[in-house]
Amino acid sequence: MHLNDRIEAAIASAVRIGQSGPAPSRLAAALHHATAPGGARIRPTILTSVALACGDDRPALTDAAAAALELIHCASLVHDDLPMFDDADIRRGRPSTHRAFSEPLAVLAGDSLIVLAFDILACAPAPDAARALGLIRILGRRTGMPYGICAGQGWESEDRIDLSAYHQAKTGALFIAATQMGALAAGQDPEPWEELGARIGEAFQVADDLRDALCDAATLGKPAHQDDLHGRPNAVTRLGVRGALGRLDDILAGAISSIPKCPGEAQLAQMVRAYADRIVPAAARQAGMIPGE
Amino acid sequence: MHLNDRIEAAIASAVRIGQSGPAPSRLAAALHHATAPGGARIRPTILTSVALACGDDRPALTDAAAAALELIHCASLVHDDLPMFDDADIRRGRPSTHRAFSEPLAVLAGDSLIVLAFDILACAPAPDAARALGLIRILGRRTGMPYGICAGQGWESEDRIDLSAYHQAKTGALFIAATQMGALAAGQDPEPWEELGARIGEAFQVADDLRDALCDAATLGKPAHQDDLHGRPNAVTRLGVRGALGRLDDILAGAISSIPKCPGEAQLAQMVRAYADRIVPAAARQAGMIPGE
Repeated sequence: MHLNDRIEAAIASAVRIGQSGPAPSRLAAALHHATAPGGARIRPTILTSVALACGDDRPALTDAAAAALELIHCASLVHDDLPMFDDADIRRGRPSTHRAFSEPLAVLAGDSLIVLAFDILACAPAPDAARALGLIRILGRRTGMPYGICAGQGWESEDRIDLSAYHQAKTGALFIAATQMGALAAGQDPEPWEELGARIGEAFQVADDLRDALCDAATLGKPAHQDDLHGRPNAVTRLGVRGALGRLDDILAGAISSIPKCPGEAQLAQMVRAYADRIVPAAARQAGMIPGE
Repeated sequence: MHLNDRIEAAIASAVRIGQSGPAPSRLAAALHHATAPGGARIRPTILTSVALACGDDRPALTDAAAAALELIHCASLVHDDLPMFDDADIRRGRPSTHRAFSEPLAVLAGDSLIVLAFDILACAPAPDAARALGLIRILGRRTGMPYGICAGQGWESEDRIDLSAYHQAKTGALFIAATQMGALAAGQDPEPWEELGARIGEAFQVADDLRDALCDAATLGKPAHQDDLHGRPNAVTRLGVRGALGRLDDILAGAISSIPKCPGEAQLAQMVRAYADRIVPAAARQAGMIPGE
């Protein structure tokens, strides 16, 4: 099966569990709306690519881990889009979950997706209990307080922001979870995989800053210029477009050289390069070409 | 250590994990506000009592399970109190979390507590991996969709409510989690313990209906007459005070006779009786005494 199809199947299967039996129908529909059709599925793609590079000896566990990670990401988007946070009416070119359903159902959909993520990992078959528990531990650490995306969002309510902790938690956390969970799902020690995840997360942050600064809402499928609007730190404001592009290239080179020894090391480096080409908006490459910009 | 002290220590220790390291301080404070001082800690008390009745051979796992269950309950209170749901300004006689902090921090505190609950179970030491994974599975099932408290709250957004699924999910779910997790934490099969949890949950629902109908906000430490206000089903409206008290006694008798064979069966029956005396508001007993009421 192609990687994309494998990941979509894993996510759809996880969401169906949450919608089964006597589920209230509108909340069940909100779970579907929040997870499909998805975005680029970058985090589960990285997770599954790392697992494949490490041998992927338990594909069902890899699929559960990939789906769990994407559900957490989708939950964070649903809550972040609420009027009390980003107040975003559109997401992936469609109404955000609270606009399509209601604020209460968006809060509950986010809560349910968080729970479902841990639930599907806990339903891993018996021989993999210790590995599944380790996957839950990584996902929990990178989702909640004090190191996860909840903490990242929490920093935005502080008078004084610890910028390094903020970026690591807000954007880096789920990329670290992606590489570490991919390795552990395939039975490898997750520790050496933290740096790759952290660097991919940094690259994603810079690319996102470029997109936010240079693209319009139609291209993004969500509101543009949010960093400027909310006074959030942005690499383009700090370094200019060309500086931000140079920084992105440096980070990705570091990411590739950080890949731990494993059977699929070369393909993984190739995946990071392809990812780099994919995340940089065309508008940024064009703007970066202009001399003296 | 006295049972109450043991449970408070377990909860405080779990919350400290979420507040450690580089945590944003206001969200860390919101986690504390949402969990301490607590209410009656009924769910973790039932969980720990069942574990003790079953031998409690892994007390650290029992403590993690008790704390995890209470964190989920606290998270649900924080989200349910939000203006978009119950719009409650007070909780346990103090400002609700969104009133004390902000709506964004209340959403994030609830999210963080959900994650922390699964996280502390996943941090159980290695020899108990399979048992810990089973505990996560029960907690996930009784928290999320389609059987858990998220589903229970979700039913309130439906045009047509499945009343049985609604009550089982909204109130029963965490009591079923309490008895089943208590049994599993002590190494026993959780299945035969579902009925006890379901019946305690039903009893709690009737007692809560009595309290909501008969007590004032000062006695409750939260707004009164919410069921009437929100058009929610209530046993007192349906059966009258005396009828509701009779129903409560029947449910508790059924609860006691459902207790599975275990070393501490007699003490557990005693616990259920003591719990019954504790949950019935004095106002209801008085009102129930009036002939012809």
